[in-house]
Amino acid sequence: MNQQQYPSSLLENAVNEFAKLPGIGRKTALRLCLYLLRQSEADVEKFGDAIVRLRKEIQYCRVCHNIANAEVCDICSNPARDQSTICVVENIKDVISIENTQQFKGLYHVLGGIISPMDGIGPSDIEIGSLIERVKKEKIKEVILALGATMEGDTTNFYIYRKLASFPVRITTIARGVAVGDELEYADEVTLGRSITNRIEFSSVIK
Amino acid sequence: MNQQQYPSSLLENAVNEFAKLPGIGRKTALRLCLYLLRQSEADVEKFGDAIVRLRKEIQYCRVCHNIANAEVCDICSNPARDQSTICVVENIKDVISIENTQQFKGLYHVLGGIISPMDGIGPSDIEIGSLIERVKKEKIKEVILALGATMEGDTTNFYIYRKLASFPVRITTIARGVAVGDELEYADEVTLGRSITNRIEFSSVIK
Repeated sequence: MNQQQYPSSLLENAVNEFAKLPGIGRKTALRLCLYLLRQSEADVEKFGDAIVRLRKEIQYCRVCHNIANAEVCDICSNPARDQSTICVVENIKDVISIENTQQFKGLYHVLGGIISPMDGIGPSDIEIGSLIERVKKEKIKEVILALGATMEGDTTNFYIYRKLASFPVRITTIARGVAVGDELEYADEVTLGRSITNRIEFSSVIK
Repeated sequence: MNQQQYPSSLLENAVNEFAKLPGIGRKTALRLCLYLLRQSEADVEKFGDAIVRLRKEIQYCRVCHNIANAEVCDICSNPARDQSTICVVENIKDVISIENTQQFKGLYHVLGGIISPMDGIGPSDIEIGSLIERVKKEKIKEVILALGATMEGDTTNFYIYRKLASFPVRITTIARGVAVGDELEYADEVTLGRSITNRIEFSSVIK
């Protein structure tokens, strides 16, 4: 496709920036820019400010690696949460998905990825070491493995299970109510909630 | 749907702002925010800055009402363009669409809407008065009506035709290569380019 001509370099610049976002093409980017031009200056500034502040001020919880407003996230610092149960997830979206089921009252551990030899991601590239440390130092009774039902998810589950086998901790995995091959974020809340409630011993999966 | 819980008010705020955009739901907004979190701080600042500057610094050409970087847009101030032909369009997107066909070397006049009694938009709500003034004061030989092939477009065409009938100016309308009922912005460039090249006398349309 040939390069579009825009009547203003300001517009061209904004369209280019929008079009960098995943799933946003140049036509959609232009539509969004023209929409913003029709909004008040204050509203557009609020939008721009929200984005820049998100990136600049966001922090990652030093305990569970979830995003946070402070050094430790609201979940880890909440005394009402069960401090002896850790739910291991791939990323922040999974924390949000599980929180929305309102079925889980323990803590999380965000790996920041899963083991994937095809993508060159090994155990040391994700937050497995810090998970082992948590189990070692804190009074953890149960680790729930809540990764996607993919081959990479299974590999990561198994790796963590082996690493934790020597600790006096129960290792469970969420029930496969989620269709095999699907990512966690696309599951509906009822299915996802049930799969947490009906979690089973990981040893029963691999035997 | 119940309100989603976000692990950070910064994230919640950014998701809310993104979700205000047309066609962007909360799941997409979250996906875009998490994408931005993975980009460098400088890149995200560039994005936010482009949006805010677009809205703050944009100007509208005092001649044709197209968006511009200065008081008069690049098209109006370009001596290489045919200053005696005005192409009347509904909005800025149409200017961009026609410019991309590279078939038109005259000037534009952006109405900023079309006459639509259903939406309470009358002739005085759009830039028809300033179009008449341009035809009156400048040496305009031809006015091309390039509105969408809708009932509102036809009404607006006819209104402008009546207003300009007393001036020594040729009034043409783009050929209806564009399917009736379609908006201009969805036409492909070849069809749109041909419809400008094959423009016909407006009087032949209404006779």
